[in-house]
Amino acid sequence: MTSPSAKWEVRAELGVHYEIVESVDLLSVDNVALLGSVDRSDPSDTQLVLVDTTIDRLYGDRLRAYLEYHRVPYHLVSLPSAEEQKTIDLVLSVASAMNEAKAFRVRNPPIAIGGGVMLDIVGLAASLYRRGIPYIRVPTTLLGLVDVSVAAKTGVNFEGFRNRLGSYSPPLRTLIDRSFLATLPTRQLRNGMGEIFKMALIKDARLFGLLERYGAELIEGKFQDAAPPGGTAASGGPPLWTGANPADEVIGRAIQGMVEELQPNLWEKQLERSVDYGHSFSPLLEMRALPDLYHGEAVTLDCVFSAFLAAHRGLLRSDEVHRVVACARSLGLPVWHPLFCDADALGEALADTVRHRNGDQNLPVMAGIGSARFLNDVTPAELDAAAAAMAELAPVGAR
Amino acid sequence: MTSPSAKWEVRAELGVHYEIVESVDLLSVDNVALLGSVDRSDPSDTQLVLVDTTIDRLYGDRLRAYLEYHRVPYHLVSLPSAEEQKTIDLVLSVASAMNEAKAFRVRNPPIAIGGGVMLDIVGLAASLYRRGIPYIRVPTTLLGLVDVSVAAKTGVNFEGFRNRLGSYSPPLRTLIDRSFLATLPTRQLRNGMGEIFKMALIKDARLFGLLERYGAELIEGKFQDAAPPGGTAASGGPPLWTGANPADEVIGRAIQGMVEELQPNLWEKQLERSVDYGHSFSPLLEMRALPDLYHGEAVTLDCVFSAFLAAHRGLLRSDEVHRVVACARSLGLPVWHPLFCDADALGEALADTVRHRNGDQNLPVMAGIGSARFLNDVTPAELDAAAAAMAELAPVGAR
Repeated sequence: MTSPSAKWEVRAELGVHYEIVESVDLLSVDNVALLGSVDRSDPSDTQLVLVDTTIDRLYGDRLRAYLEYHRVPYHLVSLPSAEEQKTIDLVLSVASAMNEAKAFRVRNPPIAIGGGVMLDIVGLAASLYRRGIPYIRVPTTLLGLVDVSVAAKTGVNFEGFRNRLGSYSPPLRTLIDRSFLATLPTRQLRNGMGEIFKMALIKDARLFGLLERYGAELIEGKFQDAAPPGGTAASGGPPLWTGANPADEVIGRAIQGMVEELQPNLWEKQLERSVDYGHSFSPLLEMRALPDLYHGEAVTLDCVFSAFLAAHRGLLRSDEVHRVVACARSLGLPVWHPLFCDADALGEALADTVRHRNGDQNLPVMAGIGSARFLNDVTPAELDAAAAAMAELAPVGAR
Repeated sequence: MTSPSAKWEVRAELGVHYEIVESVDLLSVDNVALLGSVDRSDPSDTQLVLVDTTIDRLYGDRLRAYLEYHRVPYHLVSLPSAEEQKTIDLVLSVASAMNEAKAFRVRNPPIAIGGGVMLDIVGLAASLYRRGIPYIRVPTTLLGLVDVSVAAKTGVNFEGFRNRLGSYSPPLRTLIDRSFLATLPTRQLRNGMGEIFKMALIKDARLFGLLERYGAELIEGKFQDAAPPGGTAASGGPPLWTGANPADEVIGRAIQGMVEELQPNLWEKQLERSVDYGHSFSPLLEMRALPDLYHGEAVTLDCVFSAFLAAHRGLLRSDEVHRVVACARSLGLPVWHPLFCDADALGEALADTVRHRNGDQNLPVMAGIGSARFLNDVTPAELDAAAAAMAELAPVGAR
């Protein structure tokens, strides 16, 4: 070997700080949280505002009135929000809008208001534009509120692989306003519950108890009730936080859990991640099932499937598996899907996840309700056994 | 205003470390630096190797023989290398190759060998793939050796704007081997000299002296001479480093200068960057002039133009301006271009750069040879005066 004759080293540290701030009724003209999050040191700057088509339809008039009331010159762009449209093409159309609005390097960051898909797209565009400009994020779905709100990750699907391209680029600030949930369809509320359910299973037994007791009612009331709901919940549930209602506590615990898990491992240098629970088999299977499954539904299926794996190892008792399945059902989430009973598909999904985890399975599984451990030696026979267990949950006509 | 009712904060630090290592004759089968830079803990992993079409043509056989000698299963992809092809489409084709080679999250990083354009493309693809995988970089042009080698930046052109989309994603390691320059066309050697010239002007008077004395000879000898060249150089030049030849010292000083400037400001949080010298007006004008100007030529034109701006402010004496122009000419670099005499084009270029510098000009200009300062109040009249001064350098037929 020729020995190196010269060598230079570069060492640097990037400090990242972002915040998630609750502010109720953001589009009320006397609430300045939205514009107060943006450096508008030159009031003549064009403010780029990106929304998804659903938000445009339901809140577009209020949003425009809000911006006009505050005399902000704006450029409003409406983007599709389906998982099938989470593509690099849409990222480029956002970059075009940034060019059109003559976006600056730092000041006057774009504001994105919408569901998880469009927030991912705007986040990736912002991270690429001028190699990264700040942005402000307002999630309007339950999935967005509890999951996207904390994440630093952005991503788009590519060649049939979920989030195969993306970046770590947290927004300056995420504004949380659960009043948007009032107009969310029931299936979307259930979708968001899928990620809350995931967090409960591997980290937060109390949150699991809250879901068992209040989950169905929260979905029915679209998370709008300020007071604890009445007597229809299962008795014997846990007491509430002082002063908190179930909606705030469920959302708050889900966010807090994400913060605790992500903060020490924001760039995922550590590939054992308990929040990957529900995300081991689902990434590939969700893509194959499109547009059948929503993300939170695919995650729930993976959670149930992985609970069977854990039970097979003696990490979960059968009564605990029963509670997991019953809770998912009470939230209106699926507990069976043909792709999760297909040994070939499961094997392929795991193989791609193993590449994503750098050669290891690092498979998070439940170890009792509310805690997790990692497996690295799950065999095809164990996948078959879990698939067979899930097949027994199939509706009679599908067996 | 509704006061926020809940708030979460996320704080994290990303440590980055990468190195630039010289290793002569990388493709010699007994040099294991190339493969030794890659974690091939499973020797059956397919090694993704990306080259540009020029490298494939000139070194493809040697490279394949090298990989076969070392019994490495490989997937070799050849990419275009012209500035016009620095597009997101090419980034996506590299991401496809990563899918095809079943790239892992960390181990077995892709190796990219080629000029600056393809290294930028592979770098951006690696930073997006799985939200960032490591890669190894081997620059094969002079521009790549002295500029890309140190940079953490990647980028592609978008809608007529240079590097409008990109990322900060340094490779794990950059391997430097100036033996590749033996096959580089003269104009490409001059192109790389443009960035060395830039560094000399704002940071390194000794490097400027070396360019004046040895620059033309280094180009003629394609940086291959191991000993100081003979008597044709201008007399009275500076003495050389002990043991160093001009080729190594010129390349070494250019790299060292870049390391010193970039390391404390890797993510460009500080927008006063002296290495932006030559990159204030050129980014837009280079795009408009494509395929006429190479990057280092556009940078040189910006350097000369900005020297006139500095002279107008009294920061540079006329004999210093004369030396700047004479040195550029001796390196075979252009000192005049119609776009740099076009007040509208110059104004547009500066306006976009001001947005890139977040509303400020932060215009680096020379303050004597080898040092820089920043201007924030350059007027259109000053641009006109500098443009007029440059117009006087036009060849007679073009006036």
